[in-house]
Amino acid sequence: MNKPTSPQAAYPVEDRNRIRRRHDRAAYDHASVHAVLDAGMLAHVSYVIDGQPYCTPTIHWREGTRLYWHGSSASRMLRAQAKGVPVCVSVAMLDGLVMARTGMNHSANYRSAMCFGTAALVEGVDEKTHALLAMLERYFPGRNETLRGFSAQDIKATKVVGMEIETAVAKARADINHDEPEDLENPTWAGVIEVRQVIGERTPCPHNTARAIPSGLEAYAPGRRLDEAMGELARLYAAEPA
Amino acid sequence: MNKPTSPQAAYPVEDRNRIRRRHDRAAYDHASVHAVLDAGMLAHVSYVIDGQPYCTPTIHWREGTRLYWHGSSASRMLRAQAKGVPVCVSVAMLDGLVMARTGMNHSANYRSAMCFGTAALVEGVDEKTHALLAMLERYFPGRNETLRGFSAQDIKATKVVGMEIETAVAKARADINHDEPEDLENPTWAGVIEVRQVIGERTPCPHNTARAIPSGLEAYAPGRRLDEAMGELARLYAAEPA
Repeated sequence: MNKPTSPQAAYPVEDRNRIRRRHDRAAYDHASVHAVLDAGMLAHVSYVIDGQPYCTPTIHWREGTRLYWHGSSASRMLRAQAKGVPVCVSVAMLDGLVMARTGMNHSANYRSAMCFGTAALVEGVDEKTHALLAMLERYFPGRNETLRGFSAQDIKATKVVGMEIETAVAKARADINHDEPEDLENPTWAGVIEVRQVIGERTPCPHNTARAIPSGLEAYAPGRRLDEAMGELARLYAAEPA
Repeated sequence: MNKPTSPQAAYPVEDRNRIRRRHDRAAYDHASVHAVLDAGMLAHVSYVIDGQPYCTPTIHWREGTRLYWHGSSASRMLRAQAKGVPVCVSVAMLDGLVMARTGMNHSANYRSAMCFGTAALVEGVDEKTHALLAMLERYFPGRNETLRGFSAQDIKATKVVGMEIETAVAKARADINHDEPEDLENPTWAGVIEVRQVIGERTPCPHNTARAIPSGLEAYAPGRRLDEAMGELARLYAAEPA
């Protein structure tokens, strides 16, 4: 369950999340930040060990203003984050190449969300089980009912990290090229080349039988934009009773 | 110009880049790391300011074992990295959703490269100009010849950061689902759902004339995989005379 926050809710603007460059592209409201988090399936988590920054890509999920990710008990990242450490979690999508008439005016269309908080392990079998079931339900609604449930050993071997989003910012560019008036005569092609992430073909497991039921995969139709599927699944997840 | 390093060349295995979990998926050779860096257009850069980690998405480019990124002189990231600071740069691509017969055995196919080094500003007009021209040439071969060149003001307003890759690691999963023998009777659909990033349609600038020439865009055909286009362009860039 993942109730939407109020339409007016926003993250506080602090030194660490204030956008200095092109602040017209920035948004601090929950809706803008959560839309990017929900449209992406891959986050990058930054954390520090002995002064050395690390940047680890991982699957993430969201419950309200909390972010989660998970991994093996052997993971360096998850061991480092056990006790509560400052992290920055970013989700970004490239949406297009912006071709202009000078090198300087080339750009990219993108959406990004940068979230700050304190990561800590989700402790306790019940809490971990709840979080892992939430992950499955958010990505593949109803699928867990068709699976053998998590075993005690599964839960033990997995670490789950949770982070309350203390503050965050979304930044996006969705625009055409902008050139100086004096460059418009240049006959080079200018404009935007779209880039998108799409769902491809399904490769069935050789052990599937003819009666294999694709439970929870309805949203992942071949050829569909992944961000649209992810956004739809997030809205479905938010709407269902806890 | 970007000469390939020798096929045997590898990054040193150190504490910060050693993969502890699933080291069978890790590779330290230049070819494996560079293939991921070259296939992606979006990097995430992690750095630390006063103990706080930041994770900034940005376009990157590579010359041999050096990585580059750039931005406005107003950027917090680029100001923080002016003097030489430890950073971690990751490039990751989601390639598929791995659907299994237990929640625990669900996974993702992906490719990632994590690079460690010391970021510092590229100083000097000639060095900055060279780096920005290299970026254009790597992404859009021959395009710069059709553009008005960078002005002194363009160069001044842009900061370029360079980083020698001190060490790095590539990690990838490209596999089907793996289930326990006792779960194979479960009739739920299992297998892999491919995810890919593709090049979409072109939206021309309203100022383009009928004779607009799409210089440097030959690789970006609509419908093509972006990683394939990027890899092809990287090989072209490596092959051309300095």
